[in-house]
Amino acid sequence: PLSRLTDLKHIDELKRIKRSISTELRELESRRNHIQDDISLQQGRYIALEQSVKKAEGEVQFLKSRIQQLKTEQKEVEKPKLAAPARLLASEDLNVDLTPTSLHYKCQMHSCFDYSRCSLTSQFPVYVYPLNTDNSPFDVTSFVQEAIRISFSTNRYITNDPSTACLYVVVVGEVEASAGVDSKPVISPDAISSWLRSLAYWRGDGRNHLLVYFSHQTTTQNPLKGVDTGRAIVGQTNFEASQFRMGFDAVLPNLPSFKTSKLMKVTFINAIDKIIIFLFENYYVPALRDYALSFQGQWPSNYHAEADGDAALPPDSEFHQILLENMNLMRESVIHGNFMLQVQCQEERIVTPGFSSEWSLCGSEGDRLAVLSRSTFALILPAEDRNLLFTPLFSTRLIEALQSGAIPVLLGTHTRLPFSEFISWEKAAIILPQARVTELPFLLSNIPHAEIISMRRQGRFLYDTYLSTPPQVVESTLALLRTRLQIPALPVEDVPSNVIPHRSYPVVEHVVSPGDAQSEFGIPPIEESTSSPQFTRNYTSVTLDSRDTWNNIPGPFNLYPFTPKDRLLPSDAQFIGSSNGFRPIGGGEGGTGKVYQESLGGNSPWEQFTMVMLTYKREEVLLQAVERLIGLPHLNKIIVVWNSPEPPGAELRWPDVGVKVVVIHPEKNSLNNRFLPWSEINTEAVLSIDDDAHLRHDEILFGFRVWRESRHRVVGFPGRFHAWDPRHGGWSYNSNHTCELSMVLTGAAFLHKYYLYLYSNWMPPAVRAIVDQHMNCEDIAMNFLVSHVTRQSPVKVTSRWTFRCPGCPVALSQSQEHFDERHLCINAFVKIFGYMPLVYTQLRVDSILFKTRLPHDKQKCFKFI
Amino acid sequence: PLSRLTDLKHIDELKRIKRSISTELRELESRRNHIQDDISLQQGRYIALEQSVKKAEGEVQFLKSRIQQLKTEQKEVEKPKLAAPARLLASEDLNVDLTPTSLHYKCQMHSCFDYSRCSLTSQFPVYVYPLNTDNSPFDVTSFVQEAIRISFSTNRYITNDPSTACLYVVVVGEVEASAGVDSKPVISPDAISSWLRSLAYWRGDGRNHLLVYFSHQTTTQNPLKGVDTGRAIVGQTNFEASQFRMGFDAVLPNLPSFKTSKLMKVTFINAIDKIIIFLFENYYVPALRDYALSFQGQWPSNYHAEADGDAALPPDSEFHQILLENMNLMRESVIHGNFMLQVQCQEERIVTPGFSSEWSLCGSEGDRLAVLSRSTFALILPAEDRNLLFTPLFSTRLIEALQSGAIPVLLGTHTRLPFSEFISWEKAAIILPQARVTELPFLLSNIPHAEIISMRRQGRFLYDTYLSTPPQVVESTLALLRTRLQIPALPVEDVPSNVIPHRSYPVVEHVVSPGDAQSEFGIPPIEESTSSPQFTRNYTSVTLDSRDTWNNIPGPFNLYPFTPKDRLLPSDAQFIGSSNGFRPIGGGEGGTGKVYQESLGGNSPWEQFTMVMLTYKREEVLLQAVERLIGLPHLNKIIVVWNSPEPPGAELRWPDVGVKVVVIHPEKNSLNNRFLPWSEINTEAVLSIDDDAHLRHDEILFGFRVWRESRHRVVGFPGRFHAWDPRHGGWSYNSNHTCELSMVLTGAAFLHKYYLYLYSNWMPPAVRAIVDQHMNCEDIAMNFLVSHVTRQSPVKVTSRWTFRCPGCPVALSQSQEHFDERHLCINAFVKIFGYMPLVYTQLRVDSILFKTRLPHDKQKCFKFI
Repeated sequence: PLSRLTDLKHIDELKRIKRSISTELRELESRRNHIQDDISLQQGRYIALEQSVKKAEGEVQFLKSRIQQLKTEQKEVEKPKLAAPARLLASEDLNVDLTPTSLHYKCQMHSCFDYSRCSLTSQFPVYVYPLNTDNSPFDVTSFVQEAIRISFSTNRYITNDPSTACLYVVVVGEVEASAGVDSKPVISPDAISSWLRSLAYWRGDGRNHLLVYFSHQTTTQNPLKGVDTGRAIVGQTNFEASQFRMGFDAVLPNLPSFKTSKLMKVTFINAIDKIIIFLFENYYVPALRDYALSFQGQWPSNYHAEADGDAALPPDSEFHQILLENMNLMRESVIHGNFMLQVQCQEERIVTPGFSSEWSLCGSEGDRLAVLSRSTFALILPAEDRNLLFTPLFSTRLIEALQSGAIPVLLGTHTRLPFSEFISWEKAAIILPQARVTELPFLLSNIPHAEIISMRRQGRFLYDTYLSTPPQVVESTLALLRTRLQIPALPVEDVPSNVIPHRSYPVVEHVVSPGDAQSEFGIPPIEESTSSPQFTRNYTSVTLDSRDTWNNIPGPFNLYPFTPKDRLLPSDAQFIGSSNGFRPIGGGEGGTGKVYQESLGGNSPWEQFTMVMLTYKREEVLLQAVERLIGLPHLNKIIVVWNSPEPPGAELRWPDVGVKVVVIHPEKNSLNNRFLPWSEINTEAVLSIDDDAHLRHDEILFGFRVWRESRHRVVGFPGRFHAWDPRHGGWSYNSNHTCELSMVLTGAAFLHKYYLYLYSNWMPPAVRAIVDQHMNCEDIAMNFLVSHVTRQSPVKVTSRWTFRCPGCPVALSQSQEHFDERHLCINAFVKIFGYMPLVYTQLRVDSILFKTRLPHDKQKCFKFI
Repeated sequence: PLSRLTDLKHIDELKRIKRSISTELRELESRRNHIQDDISLQQGRYIALEQSVKKAEGEVQFLKSRIQQLKTEQKEVEKPKLAAPARLLASEDLNVDLTPTSLHYKCQMHSCFDYSRCSLTSQFPVYVYPLNTDNSPFDVTSFVQEAIRISFSTNRYITNDPSTACLYVVVVGEVEASAGVDSKPVISPDAISSWLRSLAYWRGDGRNHLLVYFSHQTTTQNPLKGVDTGRAIVGQTNFEASQFRMGFDAVLPNLPSFKTSKLMKVTFINAIDKIIIFLFENYYVPALRDYALSFQGQWPSNYHAEADGDAALPPDSEFHQILLENMNLMRESVIHGNFMLQVQCQEERIVTPGFSSEWSLCGSEGDRLAVLSRSTFALILPAEDRNLLFTPLFSTRLIEALQSGAIPVLLGTHTRLPFSEFISWEKAAIILPQARVTELPFLLSNIPHAEIISMRRQGRFLYDTYLSTPPQVVESTLALLRTRLQIPALPVEDVPSNVIPHRSYPVVEHVVSPGDAQSEFGIPPIEESTSSPQFTRNYTSVTLDSRDTWNNIPGPFNLYPFTPKDRLLPSDAQFIGSSNGFRPIGGGEGGTGKVYQESLGGNSPWEQFTMVMLTYKREEVLLQAVERLIGLPHLNKIIVVWNSPEPPGAELRWPDVGVKVVVIHPEKNSLNNRFLPWSEINTEAVLSIDDDAHLRHDEILFGFRVWRESRHRVVGFPGRFHAWDPRHGGWSYNSNHTCELSMVLTGAAFLHKYYLYLYSNWMPPAVRAIVDQHMNCEDIAMNFLVSHVTRQSPVKVTSRWTFRCPGCPVALSQSQEHFDERHLCINAFVKIFGYMPLVYTQLRVDSILFKTRLPHDKQKCFKFI
């Protein structure tokens, strides 16, 4: 029993011990749990802290680069920026004393022109004397009067304040031809001289005066010959060698009738097809036409060799014999195609005479144009009297040839063509000495097709720009003198932006878009909105580039704030003496990934781009598109062109994405509004984008970098091409998968602002009319324009673009009808441009290390593209 | 027991049955096996047959397209091909009767020149009269004699047959200045006239004669003034307005000494650095130099206004007063930088006088160049006597300014600069009327850096090409007259190919390389070897492009068989009238995959390329590389440049890969041999390739297509860049991974043959010398050259290229020493070119559907790239 008791005690003991241990265990367990909780809490804290540190570090670095950026910008701001030239005018009393001259026939600019009235910043004010005043001996024809009135009324250089004028224009003709060809002038030279001296601002010697005698008839006389014109410059069509003062006088073309003029085209819009077909179908192609060379003319019956011709050689009727013999030879040669040479007008037809020593014109203008339109080359024989530099009949032949795409072949190097001080006529015409007549067929057959079409293209440009209408002729005449004086043209005009004010809301959540540079390589520096430098080349446009300006689209009439053709600085200049504005990658050492993303690098200074979004009744889609732009580097401004007829409601609020959002409500709903040169666009680069286009940040950034290398091209994402239909012989618009493209849609493309000016001001208005008519094709038109100007293809960038937003309201552009219209547009544009300007490309552009295997420690340029 | 017996029997029966069944089974099994064997045999046969059918079908299609191809080629062959112009000479007796003239001062080309001696195909033969003959009144100085002797001895237009000559050159000066400035000529006009009339080919009136009076001194006289020179053209430096016949006479520059000449550079090779640094370091950059504008001169003490100056205005000493006042104003203006204007030479220094009405030169040539090298602009004041168009002292100032990179600022629009008939001086100099002197600082400060460097570049080009040495001056003078006569230059010379004949072996096994077009899209048509059309633009080079030729690298002295700048035909011309040679994709309808591979498409006619492989002692690698080319479409020929000193052994046999393999053994082992314009290269496109470069067929084909769109650029595979070292301020060669490149290695690159001519004939010889010295850097040199000429970057193509062959013997290019040398090369080249011509690019070019998700029924352009 004792043992049992002991046992019992032992059991109690054991029970107690067990209890105690259990308690202890529970406690321990709870402690352990407690500690574990603590640890995980601490761990959580630690991780959070670590993240904060990382974030702070990032912010510090961002701020550092931001400061660096601001410093550079500040330094650049301190340099004086250039602007459109300020106007500096001659004061009324400023009257430099030039010694009067009796030897007006020796006048040159340096000896007869008063530059003090025409400072480089004067903007070339021109005063025009009223026509047909009481005491004028000239009775200017009503045609010229009307033409001049229209021309000057639209001219921006004309001033009504004669006291500050640089140039004084006196229109002295054309007067009615009161007598036959070669008759002596009916107005006496003395009467003219005394009238000139009586002009209000003649100042004794006619300094800075331009006497213009416009010609419209082929028999226009030359009444100023032999008149003492003092220091005045003479501009006319009819010039004799003894009379013409090189570098001082101006050879002018005939004043054309309005009926074939460019002005008229605007009114033709509703009947486009007929007119355009008449003018420009088959203009450029085929390179070779039915007649290789054509000439129509008749030797005047009243011709007799005059004694006062070129004294060095007697009038050379022998030459014409050789010419005729050769013409017969050429006619027989079948190798080089058909020569159409008529030396006798068809009997019943009209004969239009010129001087007694030049071949008369045959038939009506229409008859002649019909033959010329079938001729590859048009032979032009100047007057037998080699003292005649240019005549109205010569001008008529030249203009008709250019108008119909027949390349002028001028036999006579002694002549002077209009505006030849700046126009390189050899790019549009073959000019040979008469002695080379025997070599003509050989020479012409050795000109390749591409050169033939190039000359035709240049001829058409010269015709359109300088010769086609009275306003063009007048504008060109003034531009000639302005360029000679090295005064820049007036700046091209922006379209005023009708800005609708609006309120904005903060974008609360920081939505990081895919392809966002932040998500890839940290935060690249965000810059202040900075405009591209403007009007830096005002004076080089009239000095080193004067000839280029005259011989290339769009001609010399406007000064552009910037062009895509600006010259590159060599890359050492970026480091020595011209670092202003440059952001070389890695400070010049190059690099990938983050380093690359931090700087624009390249060959041009750092710059920004403006986004232009066209929208029509799709507010929600639009606002989402704007929101996605938050944090996009290099973005200068977002311009929303609100094409809906109703302006945005006052309650509509816009996301604040860090850059200015400007809403413009244009006058009418037109797809051409996409390309208006709004005054609010302050950068060279414009990203044109549809409201439903969904581009990623990395795509935009890379596209911008590519555009910076090809500033003169359309650089964008969706590619299309023009396909030839071998069965029907026309063009069709094609959006199939292809290995060759020729258009990049402007729903997502970078463009130079310069092309917005050309699209809106320079391109034939019929193109814009077709865009409005179909509410379609503005992107095709822009591709036509840029390829026409550059003769280069657009650039397609990357494959990754994700163009349309899924679930957006269906856009106009997806319907079949819309697609079919685009065929019509293409073929209509070809008729207006005169040929198919689009150029093919078989390549696409990617970022350098795209799909390249790299070592693990190396970064790509962009993560996904 | 019976039952047991029955049982036994039964058992036996059963055993037998079992055996029988077993046998049967075995038989069945064997039959089954047999049949199965049979089936699989048949199946094999069937598959083989099917393959044969497929192959046969492929062949049929191949043959069909081959026939189509041949038909097109045949049609094209039937058209006459153009060649370098044939020579057509004047016959001795041909002597057109031109009426003699007493009015030589009125001479013009059309009235005084006999074109019948100078047919377009005459190649412009020039006869030079012997100098200092017995009866000549001129005692030409020994300097001019020597200069002329050297110049004419290397000139390709000189003929020894006076009877067929087009032009006759009489060198009449420079004669020793026997008296002071402005002294009357010591040779009587009568003596000159009668001597001229006595010249052997004077033919009574000196038709087609050029009288040249070369100047070397600044005090050179004007002995031909007042002399009856008949119908002869006069070329000299010293011209008065009353004497100069526009479009007939030629204003020539001073004949420079040899010491600063380009000819000398060849002999400087071993001491390149010193010489080059002196000439061209800091030539282009910085854009702005220490002095914004500099002028050094002294007004001659013996000056007195002459009465026979410009009659229109009296000699204008007033102008100089205004000028001096303005100079003082400018000196004080600090805004536009430092003006260095000295109107008094430093006392102890030499004064070089010119005419009594022009500012004398101060100091030695070295002194003047030192100041000019520190000047952004150099002011040039023409003589006070405005009758002087150009003078030797004026020429000296102009040449020294260009030579040192100071942009000439010429105050005087009445002057005539040398060769201005074709040189656009406004691209290299600022030319202002004197009246604009007050606006000079404003104008100069408004010229952007890029334009300053562009003018400097143009000035350097004009200096190098037309002014730098006596041979250049003489060559330019002849080129002026030749261009005026519209006769093309002589063709540039190919390097004769020293071809080593060899035997070949058939490539038995048809090795289909990866990327082989055959393995991708069936067999594309293989064409006959066809040369690119040559010399199609002979006559347009002297008509529409005459001015471009004179004002762009390499100048007018050579006719090239083709250039990368040839104009494009519009794409409608491909279908209307000019289809010859074009292969539009899908007949114009476009397409992908097979359709795309079948035609080259694009904007240029169909063509082929030549492969040029440089090899040095690695026969096995080489032969493997050649074998791999079997079946490569568009390949015209393989040229192996055997750079090893020993010619290939006679036993060495070459694989027959379907096109001609030409082995050329050059005179010496030089890396410059890679770029020699071998006469065996008959295509515009040249694929330059290392013997160990391992390009796949698809890479080559795509590269060729890309090159066809960028014919003026280097298009290739491995990219490199020039990196700036911000610490030491120099350039280094960098082959790291990068997002910006500026060179494409010519170990695998397409080039236009035109650049081979420029590399070998036009590029400064010092560059080639450096390549030879280091046995390295020829690829860098080519990239420098092309970027210098085009101001554009190279084009990098695709990422897939697999460049070096694994396991090949280690090439020279992999050593560290080789790499380090490339830094030295880059910096030496920069000194020779005068700046860093390389241009960056941040893009790579891929085929259009590369890495694009396509529907299953669509084909890519290339399967793998």
